[in-house]
Amino acid sequence: MSKMERPFDEELKLLKEKLLDMASRAEEQIGLAVRGLKDRKQEMACEVLEKEEAINRFDIEIDDMAMRLLALRQPMATDLRFITSAMKIGSDLERIGDLAVNIAERTLELLKSPQLKPLIDIPRMAEMAQEMVRDALNAFVNRDADLAKNVCQRDDQVDQLNNQIFRELLTFMMADATTIPRAVDLILVGRHLERIADHATNIGEDVIYMVRGKTIKHRIEEGLFTGLQGCLGPDQKK
Amino acid sequence: MSKMERPFDEELKLLKEKLLDMASRAEEQIGLAVRGLKDRKQEMACEVLEKEEAINRFDIEIDDMAMRLLALRQPMATDLRFITSAMKIGSDLERIGDLAVNIAERTLELLKSPQLKPLIDIPRMAEMAQEMVRDALNAFVNRDADLAKNVCQRDDQVDQLNNQIFRELLTFMMADATTIPRAVDLILVGRHLERIADHATNIGEDVIYMVRGKTIKHRIEEGLFTGLQGCLGPDQKK
Repeated sequence: MSKMERPFDEELKLLKEKLLDMASRAEEQIGLAVRGLKDRKQEMACEVLEKEEAINRFDIEIDDMAMRLLALRQPMATDLRFITSAMKIGSDLERIGDLAVNIAERTLELLKSPQLKPLIDIPRMAEMAQEMVRDALNAFVNRDADLAKNVCQRDDQVDQLNNQIFRELLTFMMADATTIPRAVDLILVGRHLERIADHATNIGEDVIYMVRGKTIKHRIEEGLFTGLQGCLGPDQKK
Repeated sequence: MSKMERPFDEELKLLKEKLLDMASRAEEQIGLAVRGLKDRKQEMACEVLEKEEAINRFDIEIDDMAMRLLALRQPMATDLRFITSAMKIGSDLERIGDLAVNIAERTLELLKSPQLKPLIDIPRMAEMAQEMVRDALNAFVNRDADLAKNVCQRDDQVDQLNNQIFRELLTFMMADATTIPRAVDLILVGRHLERIADHATNIGEDVIYMVRGKTIKHRIEEGLFTGLQGCLGPDQKK
């Protein structure tokens, strides 16, 4: 409670810094996990696993800071939105950290067998996802709704790259059954990266909500309509 | 703003009811998606896609209700925790709805080919995940930390079942390459169900935090240590 003496603005600044720190660690974890996979370095995969707990601790600390600010300062309007957004972004970053761990776990599995193929697209996808996380956080601290929107729009490119990776790995499996376990592991890595981009998109949506004060959440992606296409044909009900 | 006249308790009750309503819809979506997959009914898969938007709207409404309560009522302690938990649970339920849609999309894909095998374990896994969601919400409304803890513990069983499904599908693929695209789709369905159980676990953790007022988050599962095992051998650094 002694922290009550700090000015409110300073506490908000601390919360923001904590979130930025967490974000750069989460981003590093993605980079480390994918570099470990690409260069087949067990120690990098292990480093990702070892660092997970630190990221989880950040999420708890951000939650505690936010709850304390809500309870003791009873903020209004802009500050309220900032604090609740920070809580949500903390959860997203924590799950991004989990996904980096999932990639590292796949790497440890893949290291038991010879390399299936040199990886080009997966590292490229990882870079895109990392940039999305970075820009989403920049959008948050600078209250930049345009940048946040741009992050959300990039989600499609990541999805497309993932589909391409998926199709390529399918052809490997079809041609040679001994590649199946490794190809499946790489497909899962692609999914993990896709989900990292989804979380960056969630953060982008939260930022737009925070800045504009209205929810465009669930409206940006037209995913629903794509999904519905198969249902709208003449033989819709069979 | 006219709603300001309602007593605070009544507004909290409305928030709780909205969340329960959302949860039962999310649970229904899981059931519908997996029944569509099991019985090969395109119309069920399409129904899941059509109902997604309604669930997304619930998340937005819950967020708006919670923000208004935080801004206008400036709640303390227990109520504050209840409201911030409701926001988090809303996000988890929304993502559970997304995952049901992902399963329905896999079904639409799988319906283009003959059935690979009758499905037993996937529907069982779906039931377990549904029960976890239901119990997590019951734990929330009844402030039942023991039930919430029980939900978190069940997550391991779902993971085990998913691993079993995964291994079985690998043998299919190895034996006959023509089964690969379908087997991969079913592996992805297994992952989606596993993630639904993860979200139920997140809700359980939030409930424990809400009731006990301290975070056991990231402590329940010893997943980290399992993951680390491969890193602690004698040839750790190679």
